[in-house]
Amino acid sequence: MTTPEQQAEAPDRIWKAALLVIGDEILSGRTQDRNVAQVALWLNLQGIRLAEVRVVPDDLALIGEAVLQLKARNDYLFTTGGIGPTHDDITVDAIAAALGVPVVIHPRARAVLDEYYATRGGLTDARLRMARVPEGAELIENRVSGAPGIRIGNIFILAGVPHIAGLMLEALSNRLEGGLPLLSRTIGCWVPESEVADLLRETEKAHAGSQIGSYPLFREGKVGANFVVRSTDRATIDRCIAAIGVGLTALGYQAFDEGI
Amino acid sequence: MTTPEQQAEAPDRIWKAALLVIGDEILSGRTQDRNVAQVALWLNLQGIRLAEVRVVPDDLALIGEAVLQLKARNDYLFTTGGIGPTHDDITVDAIAAALGVPVVIHPRARAVLDEYYATRGGLTDARLRMARVPEGAELIENRVSGAPGIRIGNIFILAGVPHIAGLMLEALSNRLEGGLPLLSRTIGCWVPESEVADLLRETEKAHAGSQIGSYPLFREGKVGANFVVRSTDRATIDRCIAAIGVGLTALGYQAFDEGI
Repeated sequence: MTTPEQQAEAPDRIWKAALLVIGDEILSGRTQDRNVAQVALWLNLQGIRLAEVRVVPDDLALIGEAVLQLKARNDYLFTTGGIGPTHDDITVDAIAAALGVPVVIHPRARAVLDEYYATRGGLTDARLRMARVPEGAELIENRVSGAPGIRIGNIFILAGVPHIAGLMLEALSNRLEGGLPLLSRTIGCWVPESEVADLLRETEKAHAGSQIGSYPLFREGKVGANFVVRSTDRATIDRCIAAIGVGLTALGYQAFDEGI
Repeated sequence: MTTPEQQAEAPDRIWKAALLVIGDEILSGRTQDRNVAQVALWLNLQGIRLAEVRVVPDDLALIGEAVLQLKARNDYLFTTGGIGPTHDDITVDAIAAALGVPVVIHPRARAVLDEYYATRGGLTDARLRMARVPEGAELIENRVSGAPGIRIGNIFILAGVPHIAGLMLEALSNRLEGGLPLLSRTIGCWVPESEVADLLRETEKAHAGSQIGSYPLFREGKVGANFVVRSTDRATIDRCIAAIGVGLTALGYQAFDEGI
């Protein structure tokens, strides 16, 4: 818990999260990951920055190593993947081993699965695997497929299927402590980014607390770029966007607002 | 160089690569990464496994730390992003600093950019940034946008824009030493994966050198799964697929070949 005094001492504290994507199917190229962007956008709304991402295969030691490193240097760690009923679902085992705690059946998870499978053939041993958690864990609700997500300390263990991971994030919305959300605004222009490199660098330097990213566009034979200004302060962003707009006009270009 | 004797000693050597995705735009959720899957699929064709991926922000120290760790534990390291002309493009500086070498202008890169910009307003200081390389680097051709990729030792520095990164990969095709490609084949079925967990585990155990992944499907109100068998040996894969097919039939399900 943070007291009001502590908050006043560190009003700009940045809360950081890491995401560990677990699964051979991402590293083989078979499956296009959707969870990085999904988790990133959700974290922004909670006032938490996605600070780093790793993708590791279905391997106990590699999952465990990444979990310990990422947990230690971030306020929160999210994982996606590897919590289903089959032999390649080893996320719970890997995290429990890394934390040095046993794997136990969570009674509430067992009850949820019992009810879910009552009309679907019953709770088999394979299905009961989805009630296994590292000892000391709480559940993250999943009102669709029965199998819950898992929270243990600052680690949040989510499903790999993006829409199920999304429902688990929804269940966590507004429940994690965060700071000021990172806001952003985009301005675009049909200008090669190399012609505005000085303008962007100087605008960022002149506005403390701003970050400006430049992302090239190639469309219908034309070259342009989107300029994304990020800050926790809306007024700073608006001043940067205005400065870039004025600078583009001075160089003979017409900006389009909000980018494309 | 590997001699034929060495190859005979280690015919199953697995060549591993890491990918470092560099960019605030991926971590903010603004941009959906496409390079992980693209690099993974390309590496498979070269007989190299994508062993791990990290995503880091545009930060010199964080890029450098990840480069040194990933380079040390993999045969190859690929990076995407941060090699354009603007102030947020710091990949070359970060890698040179991590390796302890200076950044220099590569004469051939300068010549390529000179020619490319001859009809496009000339080679400005900002554009010349794209000729900067860690000392000792070679270029990776890019016949579209002028700015080349960079190879230094076992590190391959690619563009972030997926189609430009793809052209750089094409220029590297069949030029890196690799081992046996990891092959795969998929079989699908409208069966909850929890009902075939035993079948999958036992099939994998009975076929040395096979890995079987199970990926759930939810479509038109139906629940199913794709089972992906991976191995460097085609015959092993075919035997696994056949065994899964027989097992599914015995359980009263009809498999569809090749998955969906």
